[in-house]
Amino acid sequence: MAKYFQPENALIDGTIVEWPLLLVEHGRFTAVHRDLRSIPPIDDDSPAVIRLEGMFMVPGLVNSQTHSFHVLLRGFIDDLSFYQWRERGIYRLALDLSPQDVFAGSRQAFSEMLLNGITTVVDFFYMNYKGNDFARAIIDAAQEVGIRLVLARGMFDWQGGPDAFREPVALAVRNTSELVASYEDNPTVVVLPAPHSMHAASVEMLEAAWQLAIENRSRMYLHVAAGQGERDECIQEHGRPPVAFLHQLGIIGPRLTAVHANAIDASEIALLADSGVCVVHTPASSLAVGGGFFKLRELLDASVPVALGTDSPASNNRLSMFDELRLASLLQKSRLSRGDAITAEECWPLATRGGATATGTSVGRIAVGYHADFMLLDLNHPALHPPQRLLHHLVYSDPTQAIRTVYVEGVAVVEDRALTRVSQLEVVKKSDEVTRRWR
Amino acid sequence: MAKYFQPENALIDGTIVEWPLLLVEHGRFTAVHRDLRSIPPIDDDSPAVIRLEGMFMVPGLVNSQTHSFHVLLRGFIDDLSFYQWRERGIYRLALDLSPQDVFAGSRQAFSEMLLNGITTVVDFFYMNYKGNDFARAIIDAAQEVGIRLVLARGMFDWQGGPDAFREPVALAVRNTSELVASYEDNPTVVVLPAPHSMHAASVEMLEAAWQLAIENRSRMYLHVAAGQGERDECIQEHGRPPVAFLHQLGIIGPRLTAVHANAIDASEIALLADSGVCVVHTPASSLAVGGGFFKLRELLDASVPVALGTDSPASNNRLSMFDELRLASLLQKSRLSRGDAITAEECWPLATRGGATATGTSVGRIAVGYHADFMLLDLNHPALHPPQRLLHHLVYSDPTQAIRTVYVEGVAVVEDRALTRVSQLEVVKKSDEVTRRWR
Repeated sequence: MAKYFQPENALIDGTIVEWPLLLVEHGRFTAVHRDLRSIPPIDDDSPAVIRLEGMFMVPGLVNSQTHSFHVLLRGFIDDLSFYQWRERGIYRLALDLSPQDVFAGSRQAFSEMLLNGITTVVDFFYMNYKGNDFARAIIDAAQEVGIRLVLARGMFDWQGGPDAFREPVALAVRNTSELVASYEDNPTVVVLPAPHSMHAASVEMLEAAWQLAIENRSRMYLHVAAGQGERDECIQEHGRPPVAFLHQLGIIGPRLTAVHANAIDASEIALLADSGVCVVHTPASSLAVGGGFFKLRELLDASVPVALGTDSPASNNRLSMFDELRLASLLQKSRLSRGDAITAEECWPLATRGGATATGTSVGRIAVGYHADFMLLDLNHPALHPPQRLLHHLVYSDPTQAIRTVYVEGVAVVEDRALTRVSQLEVVKKSDEVTRRWR
Repeated sequence: MAKYFQPENALIDGTIVEWPLLLVEHGRFTAVHRDLRSIPPIDDDSPAVIRLEGMFMVPGLVNSQTHSFHVLLRGFIDDLSFYQWRERGIYRLALDLSPQDVFAGSRQAFSEMLLNGITTVVDFFYMNYKGNDFARAIIDAAQEVGIRLVLARGMFDWQGGPDAFREPVALAVRNTSELVASYEDNPTVVVLPAPHSMHAASVEMLEAAWQLAIENRSRMYLHVAAGQGERDECIQEHGRPPVAFLHQLGIIGPRLTAVHANAIDASEIALLADSGVCVVHTPASSLAVGGGFFKLRELLDASVPVALGTDSPASNNRLSMFDELRLASLLQKSRLSRGDAITAEECWPLATRGGATATGTSVGRIAVGYHADFMLLDLNHPALHPPQRLLHHLVYSDPTQAIRTVYVEGVAVVEDRALTRVSQLEVVKKSDEVTRRWR
């Protein structure tokens, strides 16, 4: 059903616009009237106008990297070294789960994300020993709460990893293709091939995934150079660092989304820029596991498209993109010892338009043809005052508490700070059942 | 009026206790029954029992360092170098204000803090050219919204600073003494002498303030070694770094609270430890102005008491101690490249018991004799699940959204996520009026 939305303020391509009129039809913005003179006459035949006094419409945030079901591990494996964390948590606790358990965990994580203004999430999922059963459970969870999901369908064949993560190349390709095809016509689900990383996917797997992305005209997700260890390993094994090795393989280009990219040098930044690769920055999670410092300033200077992600709730227990935005900025100021190292205006797109690039979807903008994914913030919340710098407040203040309503594909999935599609109590009850016996 | 509180869970000295019974009389906890067997018989003559099903009682957070009225500057001076920030913001915009303006700004900041679970705040205030008029305006604002205030009454005589900050030593002492005396009997206000810093207070001022603290048997607040520049300056001028110079002056001991202490070395950490000085860590603000990395791990290892503060809303636009807690931990993990560099259990006291030490007040614990300052969190909020590690969720997850009720001195100042004493709308309207013409 067509509807006009008329919020008191809206953030339209970086500018605060007062009382714009926005037409939403079939889940997308189909008209954006930025000033009163351009507004068409409204008569009885026009779509209903929803006037939103005191409300600030902001594009929904894009969480370009998480492993949602890890929320089940939250709190159990904090404050460990990376290898302890991986052994005790990711490799062990995660293995006992059924598709129903994964559904319950993902549903909790997606619920939290919606409450935090995240309307699109990339779930990089790589526990595929049951074919696509787990992946489908995650998709079902997203569909139930109403969040837009990009399922980065993991492809993993490293012998050093758990059995539950491994598939032979041919099977991984077949399963991924099958999953891509199943959701082709779903307006709020996208499936992408996602070889795990250069240590956990063989060259054959990387090449097969890249081929699949080309055939599907889709993007490909890949963890790249999360830390110095991974970089050193790649140099030792392949004679060059990860990005250079990808370049040698020809697995690089504007359809590649590289997650983390903490341990890269200037020549690799140049390669990423020349190839049009999109990089996903995961500030909190990189800090938590003692990773290096992301070179955001240098990447932006080189015009590399950058997106932002919370990463796993097992390494970043908060699922807030507003937090990641603020951290992304603070870490550059600190790393470069300059308060003016980066601006709010440079950071904001990381959580919106950057996410559109990372995922290849039309999200993160209030613009004609884009999905009608947005949130409404209470302009009277003290965190948004003084009111002259609303964009800065989104990046540096604490806007989460001001969120009242969240829309995905033109439908309200959060209203008055509560989920509309599921009961919050039911969501946590079901996920608690999964971990009931964990100590 | 005496009341029993019986929350489903409470965090009592680091332990999650189920269904404790807590007696509150005259604003303080007067009995803490941790298990059912110790609970006294409740009969008609007993105080009323408030049973709080689904609620998690947590000690109120202590924000051990801010300059609250700077919230008026929020958004206007982001992303600048330190000196631009100080010139354009702190030195210029702040000078046009009346006591009414400062009241309006502080009231907004205090409102946000209460909504974020902060029940005690230290306002380090050093614009005293109108005697105590401004300081009294801040105290009035705190009293109106109902937050516990420790006013660190600034003493500033550096010729390089603005006129509005300067007082001669004798006048600063007289005004500070007068303010201390006025609030001696107020249960929710404490006034402490607070020479600004070693560059903005003369040795004579430092000595006079220290003398005042000794006479009042109170603590003294002081900015110390915020950054490398300040440290270098002190070495150049006095032949030794700030902490060593304080030691030489004899202005050091368990009554000193040193704010920032970013730029210190191992010998200064040893001096702080030997002298019993309490240090206030300000993670976000130190990052934002491009400051150094705080040596929290080393300070804790040396048994230095550490508290935590948001610092000025002009350098840290979020007024959330939960954010500072998480950052405090993440920054150590990152600085030391070890996920196990610090634990949630080590961090939590920074925002509670550490604040009690920094301010010399009985806050931050649910314990007999302590002020009844606490918050109630909704145990069903997804951010607190899985439920096995509630303390970890306070430090690493996003508990702010779960806050429902906040008590100070046994009185509810936030109920159902809204301020009880003032209208939120009125608060932001009044503070917006102050900045109306700022662009």
